[in-house]
Amino acid sequence: MRLDLSIPALRARYLDGSLTPRQLVAQLHAQMLAEDAALERHIWIRRLTLEEMQAYASALDGRDPATLPLYGIPFAIKDNIDLGGIPTTAACPDYAYTPEVSATVVQRLIAAGAIPVGKTNLDQFATGLVGVRSPYGACKNSLHPDYISGGSSAGSAVSVALGLASFSLGTDTAGSGRVPAMLNNLVGLKPSVGRIPATGVVPACRTLDVVSVFALTAGDAATVLAAAQGQDPLDVYSRNLPPHGHNFGAASSFRFGVPREADLEFHGNPEGPAQFAQAVAHLVALGGTPVEVDLRPFRAVATLLYEGPWVAERYQAIRAFIEATPEALHPVTRAITEKGIQISAPDTFAALYKLKELQQQTLPVWNDIDCLVTPTASTAYTIAAVQADPIRLNSNLGHYTNFVNLLDLAAVAVPTGFMTEAMNHMPWGVTLVAPAGQDLPLLSLAARLHTRTVPTVGATSHAPHLQPAAAPDTAAFPSGLVRVAVCGAHLSGLPLNGQLTQRSARLLQTTFSAPCYKLVALPGGPPYRPGMVRVAKGGAAIELEVWEMPATAFGSFVAGIPAPLGIGSIELADASTVLGFVCEAVAAEQAQDISHFGGWRAYLRSHDHLAVSA
Amino acid sequence: MRLDLSIPALRARYLDGSLTPRQLVAQLHAQMLAEDAALERHIWIRRLTLEEMQAYASALDGRDPATLPLYGIPFAIKDNIDLGGIPTTAACPDYAYTPEVSATVVQRLIAAGAIPVGKTNLDQFATGLVGVRSPYGACKNSLHPDYISGGSSAGSAVSVALGLASFSLGTDTAGSGRVPAMLNNLVGLKPSVGRIPATGVVPACRTLDVVSVFALTAGDAATVLAAAQGQDPLDVYSRNLPPHGHNFGAASSFRFGVPREADLEFHGNPEGPAQFAQAVAHLVALGGTPVEVDLRPFRAVATLLYEGPWVAERYQAIRAFIEATPEALHPVTRAITEKGIQISAPDTFAALYKLKELQQQTLPVWNDIDCLVTPTASTAYTIAAVQADPIRLNSNLGHYTNFVNLLDLAAVAVPTGFMTEAMNHMPWGVTLVAPAGQDLPLLSLAARLHTRTVPTVGATSHAPHLQPAAAPDTAAFPSGLVRVAVCGAHLSGLPLNGQLTQRSARLLQTTFSAPCYKLVALPGGPPYRPGMVRVAKGGAAIELEVWEMPATAFGSFVAGIPAPLGIGSIELADASTVLGFVCEAVAAEQAQDISHFGGWRAYLRSHDHLAVSA
Repeated sequence: MRLDLSIPALRARYLDGSLTPRQLVAQLHAQMLAEDAALERHIWIRRLTLEEMQAYASALDGRDPATLPLYGIPFAIKDNIDLGGIPTTAACPDYAYTPEVSATVVQRLIAAGAIPVGKTNLDQFATGLVGVRSPYGACKNSLHPDYISGGSSAGSAVSVALGLASFSLGTDTAGSGRVPAMLNNLVGLKPSVGRIPATGVVPACRTLDVVSVFALTAGDAATVLAAAQGQDPLDVYSRNLPPHGHNFGAASSFRFGVPREADLEFHGNPEGPAQFAQAVAHLVALGGTPVEVDLRPFRAVATLLYEGPWVAERYQAIRAFIEATPEALHPVTRAITEKGIQISAPDTFAALYKLKELQQQTLPVWNDIDCLVTPTASTAYTIAAVQADPIRLNSNLGHYTNFVNLLDLAAVAVPTGFMTEAMNHMPWGVTLVAPAGQDLPLLSLAARLHTRTVPTVGATSHAPHLQPAAAPDTAAFPSGLVRVAVCGAHLSGLPLNGQLTQRSARLLQTTFSAPCYKLVALPGGPPYRPGMVRVAKGGAAIELEVWEMPATAFGSFVAGIPAPLGIGSIELADASTVLGFVCEAVAAEQAQDISHFGGWRAYLRSHDHLAVSA
Repeated sequence: MRLDLSIPALRARYLDGSLTPRQLVAQLHAQMLAEDAALERHIWIRRLTLEEMQAYASALDGRDPATLPLYGIPFAIKDNIDLGGIPTTAACPDYAYTPEVSATVVQRLIAAGAIPVGKTNLDQFATGLVGVRSPYGACKNSLHPDYISGGSSAGSAVSVALGLASFSLGTDTAGSGRVPAMLNNLVGLKPSVGRIPATGVVPACRTLDVVSVFALTAGDAATVLAAAQGQDPLDVYSRNLPPHGHNFGAASSFRFGVPREADLEFHGNPEGPAQFAQAVAHLVALGGTPVEVDLRPFRAVATLLYEGPWVAERYQAIRAFIEATPEALHPVTRAITEKGIQISAPDTFAALYKLKELQQQTLPVWNDIDCLVTPTASTAYTIAAVQADPIRLNSNLGHYTNFVNLLDLAAVAVPTGFMTEAMNHMPWGVTLVAPAGQDLPLLSLAARLHTRTVPTVGATSHAPHLQPAAAPDTAAFPSGLVRVAVCGAHLSGLPLNGQLTQRSARLLQTTFSAPCYKLVALPGGPPYRPGMVRVAKGGAAIELEVWEMPATAFGSFVAGIPAPLGIGSIELADASTVLGFVCEAVAAEQAQDISHFGGWRAYLRSHDHLAVSA
């Protein structure tokens, strides 16, 4: 049986000394040879030699595995991303060049201990969602070789699914990091635009491109993202995103959008509706509330991508090359790309206006939902079918993915099941989508969904390595959320509770303070308010609610608190400490001690005339 | 002598009953007739009739002047902005249409009590900075009729300068709201993109256009902006801007950028250098510290505007019209606009990439300065000169204005002086520039600068109505700043002061608390920290510093405060209240009372071993 290449599994073996990176590389190399001998799937454009891989492995000699988050983790690289010293072809042999330095993302991963194993096949110049448009051969699916791998990040997905790499880098402009994930039973992360720099990546559409990650689990994808992310001065579209500010990924209740019945399209796949319904049911079981979303403005964005001027970015990216040697391109790629030069600047601006309009139309959706859930792709096609109808079927595959990049959203494709014999047991999955910056909450929810759906990862027999779930890396992905304990008029249902909910605060728990506080009824009101004062002895446990809100909103909340109240630290019953309301002792001295009620609600219940005003 | 039309002057007269809107309109109408008889300046494309103006004035009958911020204030409207029932021509007679409803901005101003007086002449389709490119005649300068008015908002500036309106609306895509302000001795506000909706405005470049305001003073411009601003669902580029978060406009010290010597260009104007030096000296006298700024990336953006694809937006805006009847356009406007269709989509994206790059290059400048100060225009040209060399001289006038819109900046042009006989005593001025959202701080600084510079407004003999300065309207322009009093380790120079400065906090004052606090030295440290506890009697006045920081940063500051400290309300020596550090009384009971030192600094001075660690 092949090694379980999931990051926690390898890491455990490196840490306990039962495996070394050199041993891993040797074993992987043998597996790659065996794979090639068994069936030529056209995964690689340039697999690294054993010696090349060993050079990376030996660079780890003497390093402590505990200090490198990706120590000895093998990864594959889509061949439109530079690996120093190895040709980059973008699946166009005449375009090839050999970069001296690796892409920024590759440099960062290697610095974190990861080992590159090869450059993978793709739809030429990342133009396609099929994996068929390559002079290096149509990339075959990892689970059923008659089927397409999906693209454009074809070989990147298949190499991970076959257990030849722990993760891989793809690129995603319109779905290239998600469609192949679904078709190979993998997690596919399309990060927020700019989160991973694109320096050293052959552009497709520079304003939309992202480097994407194929991984066995969402946890692995998060580990890779943590090492890969961060602004790069060499890529002006790269950016540091602010704290994500959302905890829906870990919350016991959340709201997720689902397309209206009329918006669901499966392109003849008879199993799509049941597969999607099952995924929705899993999310409901996790505490999610489905909310119907009108997908039409999203679909209008998708149409704009295909009919609009963005193809001109593809033209601009290879302009000198395509103008000099148009015949060097794959015929389908050439036909698509050459349309770019026929579009005018006025038409381009008209499309940018239309996009802005549609962006505005879609924005209110995010007030109602934490994330949107759609099929990743409607169906799975065979290579023969795509070769017979290359444009239309390609377009079908992007039905649910095309709008994401133009709307500045992040997305995670998650495996949710296998279809039946009628669809040759091909895998199926959904994509979770949310506004830029919410990569981590999406990955957290993806991890929880994954635990309920499929028993194996990729084309392997390994179970998803989901337990114990890695704690979210709060240094790499700060939430920007602040917890605050409230004890009086801010409690749920009481007059000032709106000051919390208007700031997107969520109730986390109802609990008690440590038994060291005095609660007093302050003079004045309405709103009637208590004060909580820590005392050296004779204190009571006071009922509290702990809420969580974005730190960016917390400042104005604090600024609105009148004397004698303020925000300090409150000790909870479990001896942990949380921010919360405190009261100046001098004010409490003159106020009625109501500690024996154990909380403001109990006091209100016994004082009907006060409760009325609430 | 003509009426002083400044908003506070008119408002005072309406409030004391010495003037009514009907009387004002009658008097204005007579002045307009007299002005026309004296000299045809080509200010108006369609002046309102006395009856039309009286209809707006009579709509105010019975309204309380105190309840309408623009009660009875007359304003002119550039003729690319709709006024319901009156033709909009954009200075192209064949393009004319009669809108049923007014532009959103016009509706808002009328609702606030303002009275439209006419539609003003402009460079056709707002393409130009000269006011000469109009079939309605070259608009003559208000101070010297041989000189251009500046454009494209030509008549809007001249009408205000001549005292025929209190303020006017222009549009600004590349300087059209600023160049005419300088040439007519007015304040010109180019607001942040989207702050004033463009619904009902003939577009020039939709991604860059703003509705601008010409006013006699910065205070008047702020009053107009308060009534005009706010998102409009009908304009997808409109937006509500967050709190400005900066107080440099009112601060006793601030930092302003000035172009390097090598970047200053006056196009042969011999008086430019001295005029600019004088303006800089005035800003220094106001507490400003000049900081040299490399203007080259800004100028590269300006070049991009003229050589890049944005002219295609002008083409797209009137596409059906220009394609059907190209001969209907002014020959210069036609020649410029028709270039738009020759630009390709790939070239468009290439320019967008270049812009993004230059935007990134300019961003760090704003870490060093509060605002940038440049000449508004290098020089003043005669109508004859511009007619002889229409493209080049027009371009010269935009030298310092062209980059502002593409970089998403706000700007205020301020009169700073008159040139000598050699330049026919034409007015001169500078523009204050800052990132989007900082309209109010710019206007506040502009008002202070204006008090030092010129004795009269426009072409009138009225002094700028600057006293009493209107208090900034904090409801319309919230600062988003929070004041916090610190008494211990956060004081200037002490170990935790960086927690303030890293959050862009500024020191406002050093003061004392009211004499009702106990100061204690808390156990633990370093950092060594005091605690301040309000007491019922026997309290002392404690030395404090009051700092101001953005509320969005204050939340994380509060979240980092450990027990027994917190943020509550502190009473100052002047009996006002400010947020500040408080301490739980129970912790203070066990700590050393150091109240008699009157502050933490005094205590540290007497305890050398503690000061060392600071």
